[in-house]
Amino acid sequence: MKVTVHRKAHFNAAHRLFNKSWSDEKNLEVFGKCSNPNYHGHNYELVVSVTGDIDQETGMVIDLKILQKMVYEKIECEFDHKNLNLDVVYFHDKNPTAENIAVVIWNILRKELSDIFELEITLYETPRNFVTYKG
Amino acid sequence: MKVTVHRKAHFNAAHRLFNKSWSDEKNLEVFGKCSNPNYHGHNYELVVSVTGDIDQETGMVIDLKILQKMVYEKIECEFDHKNLNLDVVYFHDKNPTAENIAVVIWNILRKELSDIFELEITLYETPRNFVTYKG
Amino acid sequence: MKVTVHRKAHFNAAHRLFNKSWSDEKNLEVFGKCSNPNYHGHNYELVVSVTGDIDQETGMVIDLKILQKMVYEKIECEFDHKNLNLDVVYFHDKNPTAENIAVVIWNILRKELSDIFELEITLYETPRNFVTYKG
Amino acid sequence: MKVTVHRKAHFNAAHRLFNKSWSDEKNLEVFGKCSNPNYHGHNYELVVSVTGDIDQETGMVIDLKILQKMVYEKIECEFDHKNLNLDVVYFHDKNPTAENIAVVIWNILRKELSDIFELEITLYETPRNFVTYKG
Amino acid sequence: MKVTVHRKAHFNAAHRLFNKSWSDEKNLEVFGKCSNPNYHGHNYELVVSVTGDIDQETGMVIDLKILQKMVYEKIECEFDHKNLNLDVVYFHDKNPTAENIAVVIWNILRKELSDIFELEITLYETPRNFVTYKG
Amino acid sequence: MKVTVHRKAHFNAAHRLFNKSWSDEKNLEVFGKCSNPNYHGHNYELVVSVTGDIDQETGMVIDLKILQKMVYEKIECEFDHKNLNLDVVYFHDKNPTAENIAVVIWNILRKELSDIFELEITLYETPRNFVTYKG
Repeated sequence: MKVTVHRKAHFNAAHRLFNKSWSDEKNLEVFGKCSNPNYHGHNYELVVSVTGDIDQETGMVIDLKILQKMVYEKIECEFDHKNLNLDVVYFHDKNPTAENIAVVIWNILRKELSDIFELEITLYETPRNFVTYKG
Repeated sequence: MKVTVHRKAHFNAAHRLFNKSWSDEKNLEVFGKCSNPNYHGHNYELVVSVTGDIDQETGMVIDLKILQKMVYEKIECEFDHKNLNLDVVYFHDKNPTAENIAVVIWNILRKELSDIFELEITLYETPRNFVTYKG
Repeated sequence: MKVTVHRKAHFNAAHRLFNKSWSDEKNLEVFGKCSNPNYHGHNYELVVSVTGDIDQETGMVIDLKILQKMVYEKIECEFDHKNLNLDVVYFHDKNPTAENIAVVIWNILRKELSDIFELEITLYETPRNFVTYKG
Repeated sequence: MKVTVHRKAHFNAAHRLFNKSWSDEKNLEVFGKCSNPNYHGHNYELVVSVTGDIDQETGMVIDLKILQKMVYEKIECEFDHKNLNLDVVYFHDKNPTAENIAVVIWNILRKELSDIFELEITLYETPRNFVTYKG
Repeated sequence: MKVTVHRKAHFNAAHRLFNKSWSDEKNLEVFGKCSNPNYHGHNYELVVSVTGDIDQETGMVIDLKILQKMVYEKIECEFDHKNLNLDVVYFHDKNPTAENIAVVIWNILRKELSDIFELEITLYETPRNFVTYKG
Repeated sequence: MKVTVHRKAHFNAAHRLFNKSWSDEKNLEVFGKCSNPNYHGHNYELVVSVTGDIDQETGMVIDLKILQKMVYEKIECEFDHKNLNLDVVYFHDKNPTAENIAVVIWNILRKELSDIFELEITLYETPRNFVTYKG
């Protein structure tokens, strides 16, 4: 009896799309205004989805207080009000596209979660652009 | 040519998280403020998702008027403006967590729907916490 | 140069519409299913709107961290995961309609805010029913 | 390392549910007010979901500027501010139900996209009724 | 102690922007694709806002059940799944712009409501375009 | 017969809260994490509200195509995918708080609009924090 529990969180961050091994011209050509050297930013909305069996005693798949704390400490505290390119170590050598951010978040939370759970990450860069990653 | 049709509904209900076989202290310890003996409540938003083949004559997977009536009679009339713990028979011996409510709703609607359809239930307890169950 | 700053908060609570001086029959007749003796509940969404002059040094009307803390301590801690009729002293003699809850919240916050600010409260009982009060 | 990229678009259109081989009475009986001969309409919200590998150089599954242009030219320009039954050739012999519109959009975009991508279409006819099709 | 009570409703309708006294060319020039002779359509979202004193016995400004019934009978039944230009008598000689629709709805409901109430209408033609009218 | 027409737009930008005449310590003390020297960012949602009489020939207060073009050219092109502190001249000597951004946008659009219209700006910095300015 597998159920998926979804928890929303959010963080506000600056970023630019940028490939270090390319010239500024090539970055501009490929990424357009998303490569503005002075950065732009987003209100990222994050959905963390954890699938597992319902515990018969609690009626819960996972204690939401624990999941919420994990997302707060490992993601929100690390990403919120930050410049993803400059302040977040995971993006020193990785372009902070929505795709890459979702993979990074999945990798961080995967290590925190017991193997009995499946994990999926949905990340909204804007209400109109979002990505999903499930490992 | 399988298509999934999603229909939203909602009900407003009181509940508390509570395991009858535990002491009040243990309930409070595990469920925190969600176990307030005087109850709290939510605007539950429900998405009923039915997957099947498109009928070539109607262009529809299922007649939405029939689906809407089924959800209204079997779920909204039973759960809306109710205390889930006290007023809804399914939770006399089951903790009304979002996970358990979703499973209960799936079981109710599964019996009403023809076997040619697959069924998935998404239940929002709040805009930030929601669960999915597909049997 | 008056600007209005709006801050959203939320609390999940149980309530029933109930006039103590009426019989149960009259309560049921007037308030319908909203008067269920076992309570029902809502995810209340609250918008606190504060109008004032922009401070020339900070560029802000009011420090949002202070406003947020005030709303958290005076409203969210008092109302969240509570039964409004039983647990919240303001409603021991007042019917917890959306109108009355908005007035109560306005009165609480009005005392906390300096007289240089105007205050307006918007309270969503559901996404479809909401009220506004500005004193 | 498959990631799904979702892009939202929208178009506003008139339609009626109508099976040409049926009498007006039968259409009315089956489709109810949705078969009004003078049409009604919707703000359709479309989510185009493309799944593929992250390109290691760009950090992207697909260039969103290209996806956005494709959706604009092939879907929005063809469907927006149109009468689906009268103005859009795909529905001259097909009932413009949400299910059929989603399949038509999938077929159009499938031809435009490289085979290395999977495609899923979600179409909201209203915020309460929506459908999903993945081929 | 004036409080404003807001109630949301919705209707799905077809329309075209059209001034009968102009040529088709002039209509197209002024209204663009909104003047498509075959119509297009929208999911209109309506907010009816009623301001008045809180009744001390009920704690309510107006009985929402009565307001809801009034909006359902006078607006939703008349406008939903209709072609505004052809099926709704108010627009036989009036261009169904969002502005004019809001004024028409205000005029209809003003006659139904007691003089002790103020009335404001907000009408969303799309989530991005909306209008407000208060008489 | 005054009607208010509201049009939504959006821009994604980086910023930091910063008073040039203060030390870094004082900036951090007053603005907290919002003063991160490497910037953070937001998806700003903008509502431009124009009040005027309905033109009897068109049924419109203002031609939305013209309003949309004005907002696109004067606001979105200037603010979108920019660093407000570094790239937008209005904030070289002004702290880009939501309050100040709203006033700047109001001043820009006020010059573009005929005197027959009233103007109000609502700016969402996040879905939970927003401001309103009407001159």
